[in-house]
Amino acid sequence: MNEDFLLMIPGPIPVHPRVFRAMSMKIMPHRGDEFNKLFLEQSDRMKKIFKTKNDVFIIAGSGTAAMDAAIANIVQPGDKVLCITSGKFGERFRDIVKAYKGAVIELKYDWGMPIKAEDVKKALEKDPAIKAVTMVHNETSTGVRNPVADIGKIVKSTKALLVVDTISSLGGDNIEVDNWGVDLCASGSQKCIGLPPGMSFISVSQKAWDVIEKTDGTCYYLNLKKYKNNKYKAPYTQPVSMAYGLKEALDIIDECGFENWIKKHEKMAKATREAAKSIGLSLFPHDEKTCSNTVTSIKVPEGIDGQELVKVMREKHGIIIAGGQDHLKGKIIRIGHMGSVTEKEIIVTMACLQMSLKDLGYNTELPSILTPIWKI
Amino acid sequence: MNEDFLLMIPGPIPVHPRVFRAMSMKIMPHRGDEFNKLFLEQSDRMKKIFKTKNDVFIIAGSGTAAMDAAIANIVQPGDKVLCITSGKFGERFRDIVKAYKGAVIELKYDWGMPIKAEDVKKALEKDPAIKAVTMVHNETSTGVRNPVADIGKIVKSTKALLVVDTISSLGGDNIEVDNWGVDLCASGSQKCIGLPPGMSFISVSQKAWDVIEKTDGTCYYLNLKKYKNNKYKAPYTQPVSMAYGLKEALDIIDECGFENWIKKHEKMAKATREAAKSIGLSLFPHDEKTCSNTVTSIKVPEGIDGQELVKVMREKHGIIIAGGQDHLKGKIIRIGHMGSVTEKEIIVTMACLQMSLKDLGYNTELPSILTPIWKI
Repeated sequence: MNEDFLLMIPGPIPVHPRVFRAMSMKIMPHRGDEFNKLFLEQSDRMKKIFKTKNDVFIIAGSGTAAMDAAIANIVQPGDKVLCITSGKFGERFRDIVKAYKGAVIELKYDWGMPIKAEDVKKALEKDPAIKAVTMVHNETSTGVRNPVADIGKIVKSTKALLVVDTISSLGGDNIEVDNWGVDLCASGSQKCIGLPPGMSFISVSQKAWDVIEKTDGTCYYLNLKKYKNNKYKAPYTQPVSMAYGLKEALDIIDECGFENWIKKHEKMAKATREAAKSIGLSLFPHDEKTCSNTVTSIKVPEGIDGQELVKVMREKHGIIIAGGQDHLKGKIIRIGHMGSVTEKEIIVTMACLQMSLKDLGYNTELPSILTPIWKI
Repeated sequence: MNEDFLLMIPGPIPVHPRVFRAMSMKIMPHRGDEFNKLFLEQSDRMKKIFKTKNDVFIIAGSGTAAMDAAIANIVQPGDKVLCITSGKFGERFRDIVKAYKGAVIELKYDWGMPIKAEDVKKALEKDPAIKAVTMVHNETSTGVRNPVADIGKIVKSTKALLVVDTISSLGGDNIEVDNWGVDLCASGSQKCIGLPPGMSFISVSQKAWDVIEKTDGTCYYLNLKKYKNNKYKAPYTQPVSMAYGLKEALDIIDECGFENWIKKHEKMAKATREAAKSIGLSLFPHDEKTCSNTVTSIKVPEGIDGQELVKVMREKHGIIIAGGQDHLKGKIIRIGHMGSVTEKEIIVTMACLQMSLKDLGYNTELPSILTPIWKI
């Protein structure tokens, strides 16, 4: 396998060599005391990342497994759920609710537009039977960070549960599950936490448990009651190697200091945005104040094909960035800056982006150090 | 972490260093052409292991995820399912059917007793509305291999689907999905295939697809239609590192030759059984002809506490074997011989088992080479 590339997509991310080494440790029995201690310690440490005292469970599966668990355990056929959509992953929650035959009330925004808390308030007032509100904190498809805190304030005072996807922000942005009133918070391993894909996380509030206990849903592998009641807090075989990796990844975060880790993400995001603007590019999110801490979405300039741009970045420079999804294909590019990514990777990515744009006919003046490099 | 132990439980297993090294390769984008090629190639190679031309999908999740998928996609509330139970994992299928509100008809045998094909025939004749039959090929909890081929012959001529769990036998025993008429075959990574836990597999026959298309089930993450219709044959983020590991694990099997790989398992099973009998121990399965190829269950001799025996093996010799589950706790021990395990590990395990039994008062005469070692 050719490993000469730099992965700058919004997850999965380049995994730190320490994490890989930890994952290569001898497999322990998944039901032994030693592994159980390690496993439960990591679930506990995840509470710090979620900023919660709620239960946090580790699920063997990708992030969508945790999103599915959040819905499957609270939605019975006919239950009304307000699904806020402004991108691909908000729509995924809506589709999961439909899969469980919930009655979807969609609060729909154009991709990239900010979510307005007052719209949520109105929707909840209009229909007090709404059982849950779903939203995405960090919409990977658009690079927008949505105002979970503002919406939490509204949902908190109702009987509805707030269900949030933090897959692409957990660990890389400030998330306050308890202060914001997030009842079910679903996340994944392969973004800012720094693991390969294949593990997901979910936090469950008491308000959520009260609903779960009364819900006669249909699920087994993702049945949260089974997680809660199992003495290992994992009713089925845990992903042993991934758990070793999680310990190491959390050690790396702790060595940096968790708040510094988030600040590092903030800096990388700002650096990427400012570099993009400095060469005349526009950010995709409608309002820069809503820009994500972990993925930057940039409009592809008029007359340039975004898919071609991604290809030049890959083929000429060995840098893998993401294009747009669904109707944004070819129209935006997305650069992930998650986990162990430093300014070195940002510098090289943005430099190569500028050169690639110039290759495709974009009118830009390269800085002196890039001019000779571009000509090679 | 203390890695000085020998893991001889029926999964997870000691993972080959080559597999760990493969899993440490740089993470590729999960939706890129290169990874997709690798991923689809491995699903194709798994068909050889299942001996099937059916679709085979890779799921990010433990083996139970594949069992759940097999049921969630075919069972609507009220659907009749014949669940054959003779151990913990047969019971798991029954519980999954219940979770999806299927109407369970249980064909129940005492743990360790052989399943009789004529009982299945009678049950199907008695109730032609039965939509599916669930069974376990290799019952990890008892060390019994069940007669899937015989039951396949019966189910094939009905409209019912045959749903089989091969989690602890796939790769280590002969499984002929097509010849036996298995419609949904669920399996996992952490047994005879040789990976860490966290990945599962499922094969789906045309007969199963016909039912799935007509079933209005409730599932999302495990919705097999989404797997089939997705161009990556994985609708959600694939477990990238595990996929690298799977390629390496299948390379190891291919280098040995798949039929030789199974024969090696057969030899290890026979060696374990014969060694146990040579010191006067009895096998747990009622009929030795039904003994598993991948896990050997041995009765703990009268007057000895099985949990104590497991403890002595662990603490004195650093060998981890499994005890009995549920009502068999303390009454049996289970030794796994899966994946890369060779006669060296069997020799040392059985030698230490004999010494541990002697420590606990079992009347046995140690062979000459063990006598001085036991006294150390």
